[in-house]
Amino acid sequence: MSEKKPLILVTNDDGITSRGIAFLVDCMQELGNVVVVAPNSPQSGMGHAITIANPLRLYPTTVFPELPAYECSGTPADCVKLAKHHVLKDNAPDLVVSGINHGSNSAISILYSGTMSAAIEAAIEGIPAIGFSLADYTREPDFSHTREYVLSIARNVLEKGIKKGVALNVNFPARSPEPLNGVKICRQADAKWQEIFDERRDPNGRRYFWLAGEFVNNDPGKDTDEYALSQNYVSVVPCQYDLTAYDTMATMSEWNL
Amino acid sequence: MSEKKPLILVTNDDGITSRGIAFLVDCMQELGNVVVVAPNSPQSGMGHAITIANPLRLYPTTVFPELPAYECSGTPADCVKLAKHHVLKDNAPDLVVSGINHGSNSAISILYSGTMSAAIEAAIEGIPAIGFSLADYTREPDFSHTREYVLSIARNVLEKGIKKGVALNVNFPARSPEPLNGVKICRQADAKWQEIFDERRDPNGRRYFWLAGEFVNNDPGKDTDEYALSQNYVSVVPCQYDLTAYDTMATMSEWNL
Repeated sequence: MSEKKPLILVTNDDGITSRGIAFLVDCMQELGNVVVVAPNSPQSGMGHAITIANPLRLYPTTVFPELPAYECSGTPADCVKLAKHHVLKDNAPDLVVSGINHGSNSAISILYSGTMSAAIEAAIEGIPAIGFSLADYTREPDFSHTREYVLSIARNVLEKGIKKGVALNVNFPARSPEPLNGVKICRQADAKWQEIFDERRDPNGRRYFWLAGEFVNNDPGKDTDEYALSQNYVSVVPCQYDLTAYDTMATMSEWNL
Repeated sequence: MSEKKPLILVTNDDGITSRGIAFLVDCMQELGNVVVVAPNSPQSGMGHAITIANPLRLYPTTVFPELPAYECSGTPADCVKLAKHHVLKDNAPDLVVSGINHGSNSAISILYSGTMSAAIEAAIEGIPAIGFSLADYTREPDFSHTREYVLSIARNVLEKGIKKGVALNVNFPARSPEPLNGVKICRQADAKWQEIFDERRDPNGRRYFWLAGEFVNNDPGKDTDEYALSQNYVSVVPCQYDLTAYDTMATMSEWNL
């Protein structure tokens, strides 16, 4: 056991007191030396937001007393930036893991996901990274069925690395009486949220809206994350931050601009 | 002139009172019937954030008295959602344009960009969309040199459409004594922000940080948006919201998961 243990940064978007990050920290302590930098409040739906118009706060936290652990006033992407540049003094961790998110981040939800923005921020810094999410919206979800897969996927990433510019989006089905069927490497389903705005009046008679909606999957593919989850598999989508639509570049060269 | 004029939704991330959106609204009035739904405060750096933990407000604005125009308390992505589902009663506009952003959104900045999140949100809804940004950080930038290109690119999109799932990221160099050299269809440069955290103490002696940083382009390609901008061209990057790294899927199928 003389081998140097890997340095693993853990963050999330549900906030440092959530159950999901506690579970993930516990898993990661089997694999390496863990540092935690996570938001001090829930940041769900923050997408790849960063904080540029306000100052950021960073304090040691009491939530993980046995670890170097900090809570941050910013977004998940801010947490990764502050962790690398300030807490770790520009020493890159060997792995960044984010989650486990309370709720799915499959299909189009990746764009709105603070969990995945932390992983993609790490990928931008050239650090292997994984975002983990559980498709369970109850207040006290059971994460236990995900442990062996969290460990196996993280071990593979630590051993084999990930291509530069890519991070993994891992989603788990909620715990059911049946054990999980395994892991599927998938593409992002072309599914979306069908928005519904719930219109109300405040006590002063002024109108306000709650963003609600339902998830609609019109993608018939059996190679998607949505299909894998529907079959009780763990979905793993490798995601890149190069958004260029290369095939459209050729089409557009004929435009008269 | 019996042809039906296109319906164009204009939004941005600098807020409804910014100069950039006033210029863009003025341009779009040459092309169609304009509706404005834009944030009531600056939303720079919001990425693809949406507002799910707070209610949203939407009010008619006095900023564009001659138009159907609303200011919204939410993010750029919220504005597009509320515009389509509430203001336009689910009648999709023919085009969504966002900007003109005060500052560049080239290369990796697209991920942090509220301007582009509005365009991508429209693409998710199947609406042709363009985000415009000007690489000028002065308080009173001159947008006039961009007009002919804004109109030409928007006309092309209205006439030819864009592939489903794709939106355009258009960046302009700041005005210089030389006229612009034309338009280049580009890929997103693999450049990034090198973060610097400016550490300070508040009047109570508590530490805080400002996120700062400098833009570093290590991508030598001459087919990138950064290169085009450096040569005084308008850069146009077609961007997709399918983040799947397809080539990595094959590599990962050999993993032991």
